[in-house]
This record gives sequence, C-alpha cells and structure tokens, in this order.
Amino acid sequence: MYKGTSASAGIGIGKAVIVEEAELVITRQAVGDGEAEVQRFKGALEQTIKDTERLAEDLATRVGEKEAEIMQGHMMLLSDPMLTGEIENSIKNDGVNSEFAIENLCNMYADMFASMGDELMQQRATDMRDIKTRMQRVLMGIQSVDISSLPAGSILVAKDLTPSMTAGINPANVTGIVTELGGRTSHSAILARALEIPAVVAVNGFIEGVKDGDDVVLDGSTGEVHVNPEAAVKADYEAKKVRFQEEKKELEQFIGKASVTKDGVRVEIVANIGKPEDVDKVLEYDGEGIGLFRTEFLFMDRTAMPTEEEQFEAYKKVAAAMNGKPVIIRTLDIGGDKEIPYMGLEKDENPFLGYRAIRFCLDRREDVYKPQLRALLRASAFGNIRIMVPLVTCIEEYREAKALVEELKKELDSKGIAYNKDIQVGIMVETAAASLIADIFAKEADFFSIGTNDLTQYTMSVDRGNKKVSYLYSTFNPAVLRSIRHIIACAREAGIMVGMCGEAASDPMMIPLLLAFGLNEFSMSASAMLKARKMVMSYSTRELQAVADKAMGFATAAETEQYMKEFVENGTV
Amino acid sequence: MYKGTSASAGIGIGKAVIVEEAELVITRQAVGDGEAEVQRFKGALEQTIKDTERLAEDLATRVGEKEAEIMQGHMMLLSDPMLTGEIENSIKNDGVNSEFAIENLCNMYADMFASMGDELMQQRATDMRDIKTRMQRVLMGIQSVDISSLPAGSILVAKDLTPSMTAGINPANVTGIVTELGGRTSHSAILARALEIPAVVAVNGFIEGVKDGDDVVLDGSTGEVHVNPEAAVKADYEAKKVRFQEEKKELEQFIGKASVTKDGVRVEIVANIGKPEDVDKVLEYDGEGIGLFRTEFLFMDRTAMPTEEEQFEAYKKVAAAMNGKPVIIRTLDIGGDKEIPYMGLEKDENPFLGYRAIRFCLDRREDVYKPQLRALLRASAFGNIRIMVPLVTCIEEYREAKALVEELKKELDSKGIAYNKDIQVGIMVETAAASLIADIFAKEADFFSIGTNDLTQYTMSVDRGNKKVSYLYSTFNPAVLRSIRHIIACAREAGIMVGMCGEAASDPMMIPLLLAFGLNEFSMSASAMLKARKMVMSYSTRELQAVADKAMGFATAAETEQYMKEFVENGTV
Repeated sequence: MYKGTSASAGIGIGKAVIVEEAELVITRQAVGDGEAEVQRFKGALEQTIKDTERLAEDLATRVGEKEAEIMQGHMMLLSDPMLTGEIENSIKNDGVNSEFAIENLCNMYADMFASMGDELMQQRATDMRDIKTRMQRVLMGIQSVDISSLPAGSILVAKDLTPSMTAGINPANVTGIVTELGGRTSHSAILARALEIPAVVAVNGFIEGVKDGDDVVLDGSTGEVHVNPEAAVKADYEAKKVRFQEEKKELEQFIGKASVTKDGVRVEIVANIGKPEDVDKVLEYDGEGIGLFRTEFLFMDRTAMPTEEEQFEAYKKVAAAMNGKPVIIRTLDIGGDKEIPYMGLEKDENPFLGYRAIRFCLDRREDVYKPQLRALLRASAFGNIRIMVPLVTCIEEYREAKALVEELKKELDSKGIAYNKDIQVGIMVETAAASLIADIFAKEADFFSIGTNDLTQYTMSVDRGNKKVSYLYSTFNPAVLRSIRHIIACAREAGIMVGMCGEAASDPMMIPLLLAFGLNEFSMSASAMLKARKMVMSYSTRELQAVADKAMGFATAAETEQYMKEFVENGTV
Repeated sequence: MYKGTSASAGIGIGKAVIVEEAELVITRQAVGDGEAEVQRFKGALEQTIKDTERLAEDLATRVGEKEAEIMQGHMMLLSDPMLTGEIENSIKNDGVNSEFAIENLCNMYADMFASMGDELMQQRATDMRDIKTRMQRVLMGIQSVDISSLPAGSILVAKDLTPSMTAGINPANVTGIVTELGGRTSHSAILARALEIPAVVAVNGFIEGVKDGDDVVLDGSTGEVHVNPEAAVKADYEAKKVRFQEEKKELEQFIGKASVTKDGVRVEIVANIGKPEDVDKVLEYDGEGIGLFRTEFLFMDRTAMPTEEEQFEAYKKVAAAMNGKPVIIRTLDIGGDKEIPYMGLEKDENPFLGYRAIRFCLDRREDVYKPQLRALLRASAFGNIRIMVPLVTCIEEYREAKALVEELKKELDSKGIAYNKDIQVGIMVETAAASLIADIFAKEADFFSIGTNDLTQYTMSVDRGNKKVSYLYSTFNPAVLRSIRHIIACAREAGIMVGMCGEAASDPMMIPLLLAFGLNEFSMSASAMLKARKMVMSYSTRELQAVADKAMGFATAAETEQYMKEFVENGTV
C-alpha cells in the first residue's frame, strides 16, 4: 500500500498506464551562424506559444475557463522578454545551439524559483521546466506523449502531469491519476478535481513499484493507493466506489433545500472563495452566500498594486453573480509571511505576531486601505457586500476602520457615486484578545466571523505549519472550544450574526457543537457545503445541548474528539 | 535635550569630561624574522592577559564578584587558541607585523559576531574590538586613558566604556555616565548599576554636542540628558536628585517589614533572578523568596550542555542562600529564538509559536529534561525549591512533566538520595490556552505564576520585539486584564498560590489591580521590591475593589491606564 496526498476525491479502480516523457539528451554544439540560430530559436518559441494557446483553449472548452488559467504561467514565462533575451544572447555570445542555451538558462531560473521555498514559487519552477522541455521538443522534432486515446478504465501513472499531457485526459477513459510529484494545489490536482477524476499525488517511489497493466485501486480522499490488491481489498474499494457515487448523488438532492435543523433553526451554509471565478462552483452547489472572500489574490503574483478600478471590477463581479445573497469580503490580510515585493514588507521575526492584516492596512491607509475600501463601497451598489476586518485585537482598530468607511461614504456622496448606505462592517474573530472582549466588539461591529485556523493557532501559541509542534493544533482543545462558545454567546446576546469561516465549520465532528452553541452561518469550501447542509438538517439543536454539555466537560482535546466521533458515528451520547 | 536608553537609575549633575582613547594608526609592515615577531606577539598577549586579570581583581574587590565577570569575555577570547593561532600564522605566512595581523583577524571576527544580530553576539564583537586595541596598545607602548583621578562631580562622556576605562571609575568622582553606544545589558550599564552611578547609554551624536567642562544633567530612569541646561531645568534636576535620594533612604526603611495591606492581607514580594549570584541583591533588599529563577543562563554561552552535577550545584547554591524561603525554579525555556548551537535547534518560522520550553523539553526528555529535573529534586534537599513548568497550553503537558518528576523520585528513592518528597510542581500561566482552562490546571498544578510578558504577547498576537506593532503590547488591554483576573480567580477558587513574574507585577499602576484581584505573590527585579512593598502596605484590598471594578469597565487600554494613573497619583476613584 502506498500513501500520498489526496488531490481529488473519489475511488479509482483500473489498470495502470505509465506515461513517461522520453528523456531529452541535450548536448552543447558550437554554432557558426548565431543570427540563424537565434531565428531557429524564435521559430520554436513561436510554435510553443501557439501550442500553449491551443492547450488553453482545449482546457477552456473541455474543462472550464478557470482551469485554462493554469496555462497562464507558461504564457507568462514564454512571453518574458528577459528570459528570451537572455537565451538569444547566450546563443549569439557563447556560440551555442538553442537547445543548450535553453537548458542552461531555464534550469538556472527553475533552481532559483525552487530555492525560494513557497508553493507558488515551486509552481513557477515546474512551469519553467515544462516550457524548457516543450521548446526543446519543438526544436528536436520530438512529439509529446498523446494520452487522448488511452483505453477505458486506465489509471494514469506519471512522475508529474505536464500541462501538455493534461490536454488529452478524458474522464471517460481515465478513472484515476497517481503522480509521484505535485501537491494539493499543483496543476494535476486542480485539473483532476475539475474533471472529477480521483487522484493521489506526491506518492513517493510509486513508478518503481508498478508496471503497465497492473491492477491499481486508489482512494482520492485518504491518499491510499494499492497495486495488484488482494481480492478482498479490491472488493472493498468497489463497495467504497459505489458508496461514494451514491453519496454524491444523495448530496445533490440537497440542492435547493433550506438549511434548517429538525427543530426549525435556520442557518446559512456559505462558501469561502479566493477568486471571482470560484463563484461558479458556489452557485453549482447551491451556496447561500459567500462567508469569506479572501482579497489577497488581487494583490499577489503581480508587480504593482491593483488599482481601485481593478478591485472594484473583481468585487462587483462576485457581488453581481451572487445576486443579492450576502458576500462577506475580507479586507487585505497580508504581512511579513507573504512575499509581495512591491509592498516593501520586511520579513518579521515572528510573522504571525507581526505587521499584517489590519495592522498593516491602518498604517498604509492612504495607498492601500482607502482604495480597497472605496472599491468595496462602490461595488456594494451591485450586490449584498459586507466588509470584514481581519486580525483585530482591540476595539480601536475596528473603530478606525469603521471611521475610514464613513469618511469614504461622505466622499462618494459628494461625488454622487452609488453605494449601499447600510453596508455592514464586521470583524473576523481570530485572536485570543478579540475573543476575550467579544462582548465589547459585539456592541459595535455589525457581525462576527470566527476564523478558527488563526484562533486555534493564537490560542494554543502554535504555528500549525511547524511540524515539530503541530500536534498541539486542534480545535477540539477545551481552551479553543470555550473560546468559540464564548464568542458565539456574545454575538447572540448582542443580536448580531455570527459565522465561522475556518476549517472547523465543515468538520462533521464540529457541526453538532456549533449548532448547539448557536452559530448562524457556516462558511467552507464549496464542495463541502451540501454535506454540511445534510448534517444540519439531521439534527435538532435542542437535542444537541446535552451533547455539547458533555463534550465541554472533558479536560483534553483527545477525549472531546473521541466523544464527538462516537456521537457522529453511532449517535450515542 | 538628548534621549538615550536608561541604564542606571538616579540623577547625575556635573561637568562633562570627554574620554576618548587615541585612535591607533595600524600600518602593514613587512617583517623578516617571522619567529621573532611571533615571540613579540606572544609577549604582548601575555601582558594583556595579566592586565585583564588585574582588571578583574580590581573590579571584584571594588565593585563585586559578579561585575568582575564582565572581563570573562576578554579572557575567553585572549585564551582562544584558534584566534591566537591564526594571528601567529598570519605573522609567519604573510610576513607582517603583529599589530597588522591582530587588526585584520580581530576585525574579521568582530564583524562576523556583529552580523549575527543578537545582543550576546554584539557584546562578543565589542569584546573582540576591545582586546584588539588593548593588545595593539601594549605592542605600541601606548598607555590607556587613566580616569581614576577625575575631579569630583565629573560626568563621564565616552563613545563607549571599555573595560580598561571602567577599572578607574570611582563613584566619589564620577556622578554620571553618558555613552553613545551600548545598551541596558552592556558592560557600561552593568557596571554603572553596580556602582550606583546614574547612567544613560546609546545617546546618538552626544559627543558632537558637548565640550569638556559643559554642564550636564541626566536622569538615568528616563534616559534624558541636557547639556548646559537653563537654570530652571538644572534646579528641577537638583530637586529630582534630592527626591531620588530621599526615596531611596525611605525605601530602605521597608527592609524587614511584612508585606501586608492595611486590611491585613499578607502577600509575598519576591525576586526574578537569572544567576545564582543575583541572590545577594535579593537578600540585600529583603526579598521574601525567589518567584522566578530562569535556568537558561546555565545552558547558554557554552559549547556543551551543563551536566546534572553543575545544575545541581547552581540550584543548591540558590536554595541554600535563600535559607528556607521559597525558590521557584523555572525549567528550561529555550527554543527557536535563542542560539544554543549544541542543542541542534533549527530556526523556526515563528519562534514564539514554535518548538520551545516544555514542548522542547518533553521531546528531549532523556538528554535534557530528566537531568534538569533530577538536579532540581536533589537540590530540593537543601532548601525550599519549587518546580515551575513554562508555556503549558494543555493539561497533558503538565501531567507528563509531573509524571517525569514522580518517576525520578522513585529512582532517587531506590538509590537512597535525599530530596523534598512534597516538592511543589506548578505552572507558568502565559498562554491564552492556559488562561482559558485555568480551572482545569488549578485542580492539578500546585501553584500558578502568571507570566505577563508572554501572556500579553500571545493574547494580543503581538511580538513585542517588533517595533511596527509593539504599540499593541500593553497589559492594560481589557483582554489581558480579564485574562489575569480570571487566572487569579481560578487559583483562589482551587486554593492554590498564584503569583506573577512578568513586568506587570512591579508596575505601580498594576499593583492596586492585582491586589484587588487577589494575587498572592509579586515577583520582580530585586531593586523594585521595596517600592512594591511600600505600595502594598499603603492599600486596603477592600477599598481597591471599587477601583478594580471601574478599571475593568473600560473598553480600551488607554482609558484603563489613564484611570489607574490618576488613581495612583491622586487617589481619586
């Protein structure tokens, strides 16, 4: 049994087809006529760009506009005049062949990107290696592997899926994907999810352990992969597959239903999104709104700050698409842990306890915060936008943000620009301080949304990205649960809406507790919404009080989690 | 008016005496007989070592054993065979004069130390530059400045105090010290405090603004320095000086008195210490115990872990000196933010949320934690030692530490080694999690000590060392105050002792609140204890309840602080 990273849910059962691109052998060759060689390079570059456009179109029509975006990285690199200029210089000045010049320069950049560490830069490194190989193939006249005609029931096995490969993937033939490289957000994973093909990525040493034609079963939710499984295991996976498909169909029946508990308590099941395009999936799965729209995407991965106009367009697009349903937009939450070169941020010694989110925004109110708030206000004329302020620790921060909104409202009034005069301004409750004075915040803020990821981190004094201490990171710690219960109680007491947009909101073992505490709104990834609605509809909040009382009586996270697990699985109290 | 870092309290009034070491001009000279030049270097090295020993002796007799330790850095460098070996090699291989070889190599190391950033390494860099100059002076036959015969009423002004200078400082002549470099823990500051000479360090550009003989007044508590002040200012400082001396005398009257409030509530005023030698001052100022003995000093600034025996000796020394008074010893609190090369710690992305304190100790129980706990148990036979576990966030951590203590007790029993069978094992309450479940901890832990520095950092999600966000760091934030009140209430409810060893425990504006909340023990730097006792004796806890109620009703730290300031200054409620 192999174990990798779950990349796309579902059970895959089929025969292995190992897809390997032929290794290119690049040698240095002296070239006499540099000008002619540069022309040869330019021809290959042009051809690669055309191929990329074709791939992007294919993805757009077959899979979706959003998925076609994964080719943007390639286009960006292929049209970077610095990279192509350096290759041309190397050809002319070093008198070498195009293949060799490409090899050297692309590898250098790829290594540089890879050494930067974060996931985005890793992707850039992969993209750089991809375009290197693709240009070299064109130059050398070597065809890419064509996987559009694989037999039905294939489990695609590869080192990594290159975008050129993905163009041919057809869910009718490919019933599963296993790769040795990649992560949850790599191209292969994104595509697999879009095509709804079960996939496991980052399976160490898998290709060595499998032959073409081997039986392979995989579980895209757990990351488990078996090669030539025993009959019992295979039967087990077949049963799992049936269950998965039944459950999927069953969940689809919850589209269009109200999220109401058995005893008539209405809650909202809404979505966390990162980009305007994500709204499609929210609507597909019947989201009742957006509980968290992270606005960082607008600011990252570019060379200058987005203009107010660009931001306005993005916010308007989401607000309009959601057609009157609430759209909670969190103002910029960046800081010393993210690299946004044009912001001039220095790396903090403790980024999570540093200059970020509202602290940064209030400090940079003229050039950063006001344009964003102005864009949000203007977009509020086109839908039900609510503004959410992240990382507050004292009431002054909320008051200052609110005062800026009021100042900008007056400015818009004076110019006769439309906006929602009753726009709500709420806070993300995600620090121990905000929890401790939730009653003070509840008197002034229009709504709360509990960010359990940060709340757990800060309450437990644990960086959950730090593997040496992440064992302490659990929302089931009594300290964290008490904090959540207290925040909800303060909001209910003051009569304001209280939601949750951290991962706990979609955790089946947390949902009963949150219902018992009185949470109004559950925000999660779009694909988790229907299951959450089903759970909500299966409980009575009155009956859950006893469960919550018992759960809150334990001294350790382990006991609470065990108890909730038993309750959810067996219904025992 | 200049502003620097307060280094030694008190008011200094006098005439400026600018002390500057003559700049040495070091040139490269070719040396024919390398062997003879090495002998010349060795002679100078020996002389410098002798001078250093003499300086250390002088400091030990005139100032104190502890202060003589500041010469240890010099001795360590002068007796480092790698450094002296490299200098010798350079003389022989490069054929250069000793002065030049010393210049090059010492500068290289000093720059390297300086680039490492932390205060300890900065001190190493300063030490390296000091011994460089001292060896060169010996070689060149240039005398150091002698400041033992300055006229009475001198304000010593220097770039920085070199240890060679400090040997001559005499409080009868020097009434104040101002330096452009240094920090609160630099040699100059340590010496100034030991000699009780008012001092301000790190005063930017001061030497340019002052001439020999200028009138200078300085306040070592606020860091303010005036050159040729107007008569009114000078009179003001003279009045301040009288007050400072009166207050000092007045506070001495509180030696030997019980720390009891007007309504008969007895509390303990105890000390935070970092080294066994610090006990002298605790006894001098009549400390009722040690509230926090940081054990990090034993582990830092060395090349290998201290043995159990070395630790035992250190703990025993403190316990015996305190003669039955409680000595709370905190187990090792190190982690990714401190450089202890032999521990093999990697730098965490967020050190304050990382692998440190009890997390590190439980992970390294065999080689690090058990030897420390065994040393503490053995030392408990010689005094009233209590063990304190830092940075707990869940009860399992306390239980594991406690289980280790029990296991080691059995081990000692089986070997017939003496220890205190009723030794108390308590916790430092300094995380939001520990505060939220203080009731759970209070049922099992033998005592609490609130660490307000970390508690404030974690509650506010603020790294107080980060200047861009430290404005949020205040114990007067209502969230932090509520947390403190809650922790104290939980301890009182369970009938266990609750102390405080963060900076808030000696803050005059916090003491009335802490008395009202019911704090049992106030732990602070030894020099602050008598003032705290005086304050405690001036209040009635019953009368303070109304003050606390009002203080806890504000929504912002600024309002609470302002209210407490008015109460302490004017007694108004």
